[in-house]
Amino acid sequence: MRVLGVDPGLRNMGWGVIEVNGSRISHVANGICHSKGSDLARRLLSLHAQLTDVLARHAPDTAAVEQTFVNKDAVATLKLGQARAVALLVPAQAGLEVGEYAPNAVKKCVVGVGHADKKQVDHMVRLQLPGVEIAGADAADALAIALCHAHHARSAGRLEAAVRRAS
Amino acid sequence: MRVLGVDPGLRNMGWGVIEVNGSRISHVANGICHSKGSDLARRLLSLHAQLTDVLARHAPDTAAVEQTFVNKDAVATLKLGQARAVALLVPAQAGLEVGEYAPNAVKKCVVGVGHADKKQVDHMVRLQLPGVEIAGADAADALAIALCHAHHARSAGRLEAAVRRAS
Repeated sequence: MRVLGVDPGLRNMGWGVIEVNGSRISHVANGICHSKGSDLARRLLSLHAQLTDVLARHAPDTAAVEQTFVNKDAVATLKLGQARAVALLVPAQAGLEVGEYAPNAVKKCVVGVGHADKKQVDHMVRLQLPGVEIAGADAADALAIALCHAHHARSAGRLEAAVRRAS
Repeated sequence: MRVLGVDPGLRNMGWGVIEVNGSRISHVANGICHSKGSDLARRLLSLHAQLTDVLARHAPDTAAVEQTFVNKDAVATLKLGQARAVALLVPAQAGLEVGEYAPNAVKKCVVGVGHADKKQVDHMVRLQLPGVEIAGADAADALAIALCHAHHARSAGRLEAAVRRAS
């Protein structure tokens, strides 16, 4: 059972794939999709192609995306919304269910407190995925989202149902 | 030479296709893509599929999307950003260039003033596309965007270049 986590961003979109086998969780891969240029349509197209490639290479069975932190900078919120649409759309196009978790829920799940800083998240991700090499902060966040989704899905029994569907 | 205009929205996404033949502009089709349900990924997937179908049926050569009006309601801005990503992505996936126009630029182009109301836009769209039946306000806005793009492209000589590429 493979879980994809995505940390959406227009410039840098972190992703991480973990494998869940009963109580054992292991790292599969992680990375960051980059988009450049001033043409928004082409940037979204580039992110869409890169994330589609990640799904093709690592074949996750389920996915989760971080809920966007809405802030007072409307332009930044809009950009994030556009990137987030790609993060939600690509797994949905592959027929996966896509979970959504607020940043605080991810931190609480992975670190134990909702207001943990990036260092703590990075530390706990490394602790839960021994030997992992992380491509950057956005990839660490994506792995944290994947871990959160795995824990939630398992506790809710949804993982079992998904495994049944996948087999 | 066919021009697609899109007025992005998560619940209702207006679209309109016009045909430009030298100085003659005529209506091809217009409509509204609807998305329902609480699952954001599936709503985006549904909009993506509907808009992809519009492109397949009406084969536009170029596209334009309204620039989002960023307002103080961050949640609404985020939703609009997510819908807008689909509006930009689908034509880009079909290999089209995607123009972007601010709402005021569209109004100025179609009505002559930047602060025209919806009624005036609707009126001028009907005047420029005689006999058109409009699916709703969002479709009227989409046709206005297509008209704006056609006028801009023509005056900039970009239309000619696009025709050359398309032929």
